[in-house]
Amino acid sequence: MAHPQTVFAGTEFHGKSMLSVRRNTIAKTTLRTQLRQLKSTGRYDCFKLKPHPVYSVPYVWPCPPHLFWDSDCGKWIEAACYFLRDEYDEELDKAIREIVDMIRSAQCEDGYLNLHHQMVAPDKRWTNLRDMHELYNAGHLIEAALAHRDYYKNDLLLEPMLKYVTLIRKTFGRDEGQIHGYPGHPEIELALFRLYAATGHQDAYDLGRYFLEERGNPTGQDGKHYYVWEAEQRGEDPWKRPDPHPEYHSFWYSQAHKPILEQESVEGHSVRCMYLLTAVADMVYLEGQRTEKGLNLPILDSVAWSTALERLWNNMVDKKMSLTGGIGAIKQWEGFGIDYFLPQGTDEGGCYNETCASIAVMMLAERLLQANLDNPDRRYADVIELSLYNNIMTAMDLEGNTFTYDNQLASSAKTPSARSDWFEVSCCPPNLARLFGSLGGYIWDHGFSAGNTTAFINVHMYTTATLRFSPSADSSSPITLSQTSNYPWDPTISFTLSPPSTPVTLRLRLPAWSQNKYTLSPSPSSPSETALTPGGYLLLSPSYLAANPTFTLQLGGFAPRYIAPHPYTNQHTLSLARGPIIYCAEDVDNPWEDNHFKDVAIPLGEPVAEARRVYEKTGEEYVELETKCWRRGAVAEGRVQGGDPGLAAREVVLGEERRLVLVPYYFRANRKGRGMMRVGLLRG
Amino acid sequence: MAHPQTVFAGTEFHGKSMLSVRRNTIAKTTLRTQLRQLKSTGRYDCFKLKPHPVYSVPYVWPCPPHLFWDSDCGKWIEAACYFLRDEYDEELDKAIREIVDMIRSAQCEDGYLNLHHQMVAPDKRWTNLRDMHELYNAGHLIEAALAHRDYYKNDLLLEPMLKYVTLIRKTFGRDEGQIHGYPGHPEIELALFRLYAATGHQDAYDLGRYFLEERGNPTGQDGKHYYVWEAEQRGEDPWKRPDPHPEYHSFWYSQAHKPILEQESVEGHSVRCMYLLTAVADMVYLEGQRTEKGLNLPILDSVAWSTALERLWNNMVDKKMSLTGGIGAIKQWEGFGIDYFLPQGTDEGGCYNETCASIAVMMLAERLLQANLDNPDRRYADVIELSLYNNIMTAMDLEGNTFTYDNQLASSAKTPSARSDWFEVSCCPPNLARLFGSLGGYIWDHGFSAGNTTAFINVHMYTTATLRFSPSADSSSPITLSQTSNYPWDPTISFTLSPPSTPVTLRLRLPAWSQNKYTLSPSPSSPSETALTPGGYLLLSPSYLAANPTFTLQLGGFAPRYIAPHPYTNQHTLSLARGPIIYCAEDVDNPWEDNHFKDVAIPLGEPVAEARRVYEKTGEEYVELETKCWRRGAVAEGRVQGGDPGLAAREVVLGEERRLVLVPYYFRANRKGRGMMRVGLLRG
Repeated sequence: MAHPQTVFAGTEFHGKSMLSVRRNTIAKTTLRTQLRQLKSTGRYDCFKLKPHPVYSVPYVWPCPPHLFWDSDCGKWIEAACYFLRDEYDEELDKAIREIVDMIRSAQCEDGYLNLHHQMVAPDKRWTNLRDMHELYNAGHLIEAALAHRDYYKNDLLLEPMLKYVTLIRKTFGRDEGQIHGYPGHPEIELALFRLYAATGHQDAYDLGRYFLEERGNPTGQDGKHYYVWEAEQRGEDPWKRPDPHPEYHSFWYSQAHKPILEQESVEGHSVRCMYLLTAVADMVYLEGQRTEKGLNLPILDSVAWSTALERLWNNMVDKKMSLTGGIGAIKQWEGFGIDYFLPQGTDEGGCYNETCASIAVMMLAERLLQANLDNPDRRYADVIELSLYNNIMTAMDLEGNTFTYDNQLASSAKTPSARSDWFEVSCCPPNLARLFGSLGGYIWDHGFSAGNTTAFINVHMYTTATLRFSPSADSSSPITLSQTSNYPWDPTISFTLSPPSTPVTLRLRLPAWSQNKYTLSPSPSSPSETALTPGGYLLLSPSYLAANPTFTLQLGGFAPRYIAPHPYTNQHTLSLARGPIIYCAEDVDNPWEDNHFKDVAIPLGEPVAEARRVYEKTGEEYVELETKCWRRGAVAEGRVQGGDPGLAAREVVLGEERRLVLVPYYFRANRKGRGMMRVGLLRG
Repeated sequence: MAHPQTVFAGTEFHGKSMLSVRRNTIAKTTLRTQLRQLKSTGRYDCFKLKPHPVYSVPYVWPCPPHLFWDSDCGKWIEAACYFLRDEYDEELDKAIREIVDMIRSAQCEDGYLNLHHQMVAPDKRWTNLRDMHELYNAGHLIEAALAHRDYYKNDLLLEPMLKYVTLIRKTFGRDEGQIHGYPGHPEIELALFRLYAATGHQDAYDLGRYFLEERGNPTGQDGKHYYVWEAEQRGEDPWKRPDPHPEYHSFWYSQAHKPILEQESVEGHSVRCMYLLTAVADMVYLEGQRTEKGLNLPILDSVAWSTALERLWNNMVDKKMSLTGGIGAIKQWEGFGIDYFLPQGTDEGGCYNETCASIAVMMLAERLLQANLDNPDRRYADVIELSLYNNIMTAMDLEGNTFTYDNQLASSAKTPSARSDWFEVSCCPPNLARLFGSLGGYIWDHGFSAGNTTAFINVHMYTTATLRFSPSADSSSPITLSQTSNYPWDPTISFTLSPPSTPVTLRLRLPAWSQNKYTLSPSPSSPSETALTPGGYLLLSPSYLAANPTFTLQLGGFAPRYIAPHPYTNQHTLSLARGPIIYCAEDVDNPWEDNHFKDVAIPLGEPVAEARRVYEKTGEEYVELETKCWRRGAVAEGRVQGGDPGLAAREVVLGEERRLVLVPYYFRANRKGRGMMRVGLLRG
């Protein structure tokens, strides 16, 4: 039950790869920056349950500003616990201990634990699952408790959370007298499955499965949709609703418009949707692991759930995902628009691409990869890598102090490319920290193939790191696999497997953009020593590895390439990518630009020059690209204002030719500039 | 004070022009079809104030289905009165008399008159101006009363409406004890100015001006925005709001987000916005007509109001109007999206283009034309013509029985190109009828130039019709101008002015698409006899006309032309137009098409063949176009599902070449077909 949040500890990052540099920045700077924010805003000691002015400020219903404080603390604890395993840090350790003490003392006698309800609305427990985030907050605290236990080897946080889970299990379920509801913001489901996997706590599994199976039931409570019934119980006017619900009964906002198995497309709030589907994937995975006494609920129709997952995944990646891995075109509900509605910026009607949503995409994709480790499917690993290096990495500056919440592909006058110190709803910064803390869990998987005779390692991502695991519980000599590379800048990765005698099968991901081209050195001595798996991995057999415990893989397709969005997006643009890195143009490098690159065209196929650069403030290397561009000719030359909604169609006029410098999208908004940036340039 | 609804009577349509054919259809068929709908739905005798099941059906707040019934009756009366002047019709006459009797008997003693409040909520008068449409309904009944008086030469309908206006004037205004509010759906303002112009009723002017000046005042009532104050008075939860308000306090939906003079762009519900600006333009026009004792309010800052009008007009035409003259990209609030957000169909995220909105654009443009009859600005007349022949004409089938409410530029699986018999909210069909009834008022203007020495006629639109007016009150011999043409199919218009001796200046609009090219026969004998006005009209001097009382104008630029949307719309498309007619492709003519022409490309500059066709059911002529097209090559060939949100950028592949037949957009959905239609085709 290899959740990345557990197995990451088997991976050691070393050397100066981009991933380890970023991890070090978070360990040394970001966690402290965030801790200062927790303290200065009142989050840090909120579980003292003392009055705070924020509890009475006017707010946008139903979201008081402190509604997610429990989860902010939870995510930070989780992140800090992950990083403490790399290196002890007294300040972080002390803070974790203090927060955990406060949480323990805050818990109600019956196990209930929720800041908002305890401080502001003690009589309103469980009366607004649709909006009030009690279960969401509980989920993040459960995840924190698991990370805490793994690091501290004690149950100081897990104990209250188990007590809370017991209360929730009693409260919700199919039985009479129980609430037939489920959280408006899914999260607890994936936490519950992780809790089950880590502790075998059967209540956790049952509850997670209940929430998934009940969700969207049109007649779940007294013959009504739960959110309809619940609103009636509150005496709520049917026309009262939070701003993200654009219309009466827009339950698709919370993926509750119909049962999950019947959902045809990803809808609504993108983070909610991804957390939900991550839990579904984990449930299917757990079913695959079921032993006779393993799980106490009826057998799951895994095929139906897997079919739904595949359908929703495909809908998302093919029709609702930006080139950078970002999802969620619509700001109002922080989520998905209709198929192929993927504008680049707010001046085109959308592009939200929340940082947390891409983190959640990684979590989902990892679970889907996990489902078939004998034949891993590179589609999932490709999307993990794309999301990580682009929509996620762009969300923090290189010095680790400032963040973005939404990540447009293009800036505009109203939405310049810029960063903030913190957010009132501050889910993204600590989410980023906990992802990087557990990043080792996304790099590779290991296990034993059928019959347990041969170990296997599937390498999903390339960096510089060492994986260490024991082939069996009593084995004294662990297997180690080291990879060394300057990825994502160079396509060559050196591997060393030891001890060389161990029979191991290796599968190395060939990214889709490599077009399955690679060079393996030394070459295999016979064709049967290597194979391309159906899922897109290069399989190295034990015999190859026995002969060549040290070898290098050079990925093909690494030259800069032009990519384009699906034509149905009406984005007639070209973007440049190199390996997993998506590029953008920024005004800092192109000081002549004055309109957010809205009229800048690049020609398909024009040679692209590469240059190695170093960002002086952090010493970090990156590759800059340079190509030819034009400004679009006068857009509406000779047009009379207010005279004609159409333009006489003419051949496209391209203005003066210029050189255009592009930098990685994650690198945007690090240097001073005028906030102008664009990923997709006109197809010239 | 030449409102088209008054002066239309000076125009006689004759011959078989498209406009007169359509007018005849409405007179003979549509008005009866609509009368049947009024009767069968309960609208016809609603003013009997008898119980009806509709008053108690559950409805989408705050819009009970009968909320606009007053206005439906009003618009139908208005339309029928206009058409009765062409030819007496006993059925229509009898119906008008009956409805008017019922209205008279329904009015409250104090003058109040509103179906919903009288039947359902008698204690809720004036308590929800934002949503409940009392003033909107009153406005349409005022307009009906004016049309009724002009035809019947009695005050049977005007009398109760004047009584109602007196009550409204007492109720609303700046004084203490008066309500400092204004209608959520503007309409009454333009009706009040028309009432003032027709009757000199000073209350009407004052009230109209008050509504315009007060609108959007952030501190108008007890220091609060009126709609905030009003909602508080109702004890309304601040989070309760109708579906078209996507968020808390979205007052831009009703153009009440800020005072009109401060509005930078057209926002919200497009019909409301256009009715509002029509009233503003009329107010500015009336100020221009002010004599010392004419108006009893302080002098208006006409420059400020005109500047606002120009700014909002330009924003609309340049950034928020479809090629067909349609406005309103967003279905949820039936209105404007952000600048340049002009998708073609619902599968691209929008395109609403409500029929009523284009009718209201015509009304606004007509008022703006009126502001400067010495130098008419063809921008306004161009938009009038564009809207009429395309977005408006497409809203009724050629037989006059079925209608459209919203008019996408492209169909899709979820929104086929199709018509309906009627709508629950049925503003569009009677609005279309009253527009065609008063159409003569949009064709031309006449008057006397400074010093009253020379009459002038400005011809804004071409058709076959005669204008007749008296040069002075005591003149026995009226001036007549006849135009004869097969417009919009042929570019040649023959004119005859009589008596030939009258000194008249003629201005003939040269549409923008003519590029100021024309042929005048006979040619002027000296260059000074004609001129191109700054506003884009061909001026014919009295001396030319004295020498040539019969002449022909042949407009240039009439060959089929390619047009394109502004590049910032991200619509990489081409459309075909010929004269004022915008074309579309329909599956009936192109039976090979199976995807709503989404992948059909046409090349810029390819020759276009014309063919004259006759629609057999009505005998109506039209011009069909034919050109070359390709299907776009496999859109995502070789793509792995769920594998990659971007596509490898390749040269655009164009598939098999075909012939593409196009028909006028107004002609769509007249013949049986599969509902596939598109105006903007890929730029091949």
